[in-house]
Amino acid sequence: MNFIISTSVLLNNLLVAQKALSTKTPAPYLQGIKLEVYQNEVITITSNSDISIKLSIKDESLKIESQGEILIPGKFFVDIIRKLEGETVEFSVIDNNILRILAGDSDVTLNLLNVEDYPELDFPLNDEPIRLDSKIMKSIIRQTTFATSAIENRPILTGVNIRVEGEKLMAIATDSFRLSQKNVDIPKNLDNMNVVIPGKSLDELFRILESNLEEILIHLNHKSILFEYGNVLFQSRLLDGNFPETSRLIPVEFPVIIKFNKEKLFVAIDRASLLSSKEGSSSIVKLNLRNDNVVEITSNSPELGKVTEKVYPLEKTIGMSIKIAFSSKYFMDALKTFNSEEIYVKFTGEIRPFVIEGDNDPGLTQLILPVRTE
Amino acid sequence: MNFIISTSVLLNNLLVAQKALSTKTPAPYLQGIKLEVYQNEVITITSNSDISIKLSIKDESLKIESQGEILIPGKFFVDIIRKLEGETVEFSVIDNNILRILAGDSDVTLNLLNVEDYPELDFPLNDEPIRLDSKIMKSIIRQTTFATSAIENRPILTGVNIRVEGEKLMAIATDSFRLSQKNVDIPKNLDNMNVVIPGKSLDELFRILESNLEEILIHLNHKSILFEYGNVLFQSRLLDGNFPETSRLIPVEFPVIIKFNKEKLFVAIDRASLLSSKEGSSSIVKLNLRNDNVVEITSNSPELGKVTEKVYPLEKTIGMSIKIAFSSKYFMDALKTFNSEEIYVKFTGEIRPFVIEGDNDPGLTQLILPVRTE
Repeated sequence: MNFIISTSVLLNNLLVAQKALSTKTPAPYLQGIKLEVYQNEVITITSNSDISIKLSIKDESLKIESQGEILIPGKFFVDIIRKLEGETVEFSVIDNNILRILAGDSDVTLNLLNVEDYPELDFPLNDEPIRLDSKIMKSIIRQTTFATSAIENRPILTGVNIRVEGEKLMAIATDSFRLSQKNVDIPKNLDNMNVVIPGKSLDELFRILESNLEEILIHLNHKSILFEYGNVLFQSRLLDGNFPETSRLIPVEFPVIIKFNKEKLFVAIDRASLLSSKEGSSSIVKLNLRNDNVVEITSNSPELGKVTEKVYPLEKTIGMSIKIAFSSKYFMDALKTFNSEEIYVKFTGEIRPFVIEGDNDPGLTQLILPVRTE
Repeated sequence: MNFIISTSVLLNNLLVAQKALSTKTPAPYLQGIKLEVYQNEVITITSNSDISIKLSIKDESLKIESQGEILIPGKFFVDIIRKLEGETVEFSVIDNNILRILAGDSDVTLNLLNVEDYPELDFPLNDEPIRLDSKIMKSIIRQTTFATSAIENRPILTGVNIRVEGEKLMAIATDSFRLSQKNVDIPKNLDNMNVVIPGKSLDELFRILESNLEEILIHLNHKSILFEYGNVLFQSRLLDGNFPETSRLIPVEFPVIIKFNKEKLFVAIDRASLLSSKEGSSSIVKLNLRNDNVVEITSNSPELGKVTEKVYPLEKTIGMSIKIAFSSKYFMDALKTFNSEEIYVKFTGEIRPFVIEGDNDPGLTQLILPVRTE
């Protein structure tokens, strides 16, 4: 095996490939990057227990002298390529188990792992994948995964439920204290689907999705989901089990609707959270819509002190006065997901879940359960 | 006590004051910021076991209604001021033990600490302080404190030795494996001094020294050193004990002197350190001056692989070939302190300390002990 490639092209690909590298694993081969060198293409494969990534590198800088496949210690390989000088780098295999790397004034040899230990990984493509704008895919991830559960006692809630029903794709995440839902329109001619993708897998996908590529293809199989994007195949396992039916959780009638400037509401809650009583790791803040249409955001910590923030709704509020208490973190997390500068907070009652929506965020619903106080 | 001040002016001062706040302390009053409000001046005092900071705030935005002194929970106070909106902020004391803070649409009350618990701190000024350009003070700190010992078994080595002898100020730090020395010329009419300042104190001083103020005044007392800088008084305790006599450690004759481009040498050592045998937390790298005037930087890890880097000296090297092994971290730490693009590495022998100097860094000497191998 012997080839030359542009150092920066290789590095940019390795920075994607390493997202699926295992760092701690009982299987040392999963700490390796598998390199398959063909006549005019170099393929990298990396895999951990959640995701597998396959990259096809076809670059004009690529000069392949001889083909082959090897398994390289991943972390060291990426560290070395990152620090190399010289526009191009040359690879050759010595004695079947040593990789020699030549670039600029550097001469590096790296002991290889046994490529025969590496499992055969399948990256199955469907004939009719779902096609999504990659910006929309990024929005879906950004607006939902934060609401997945971080604790493992109900594993299904650590994932995002993706459903395709007719012309609608729905992404839903909940940790049972809050719920995020994003609905997106898609072409009609697709089979219905209902899967749960680990939130961590989606976070990794988010990090490698650039905004300049237009389309992402989603291939769904029985046990896995595969995202095809540029020269990247990104596969994630699915979570077993039934995602809770959440449609009845979202209220449909809202006697009180308050329209806010998002930023002004955010900073008021942020300040109030500084001096608030804690419930677990979360700060409890109260919202009080007064009869004069002024909203007070308040907190009170007997030890530390009190905060009272006045926020002025953008329109005369529909409905009666209301007092409600909530986790400031959940409210701020939810507000961050909106592109809209103006948002609506919709209340059903003082101990009922409330909903946040925005005009410039069609299909996005953030729901938060209030906290009972006193 | 009642006054109004520009929010940003106050915040900028608090960001300096908080450097001396204790976070974990058995003495809760040391978590407080003491505010002394006079007729036309607000003073803040903060203190922990190593340093004390006194700031005098005289700003045109300051409107003082009534004087007094209070002790405010420091962390919460800084957090609140950081997040306030509104150009100015108004403070008033209620019931002797509550601070009310009004700014924009925010109304905050903060429970105060008992100001009578706060110790009386002295910030004594001398008639004839040492005067230094603040840029030179920053250089001294940057070029020496990194070489102090991080472990406490010889406490004196966790400090930087500052000596004034005639027209010379010397700063020396060593962890017994390396030594940094910076000599600076000063006016003659000063008493000799010889003190050891905790490295951590100097690191904090470094963070608050801006480069736009020209002069720093150094007031030395029996038990402490006080830096006067703009509206800041920064006082540090001194370390007890005798700093080791280091003058004989630095060789004076160098049979081998190699001139390098600093950056090229740095990146070669950095790459070699990736695949090197470890001694403690440190990577061991070898330098080999060949007879053909090429320098090889090499490392070898039986498990991982080998690196050989070629570096070309900038001039025909004086002296014979030499092989020497050293900690890559120590060498790179030392190189980072030089402003010079071209540096000299000066050798006495293969198991003798070697020295790094640079033409554009007068008075700066970095010394490193080699590592014995085989």
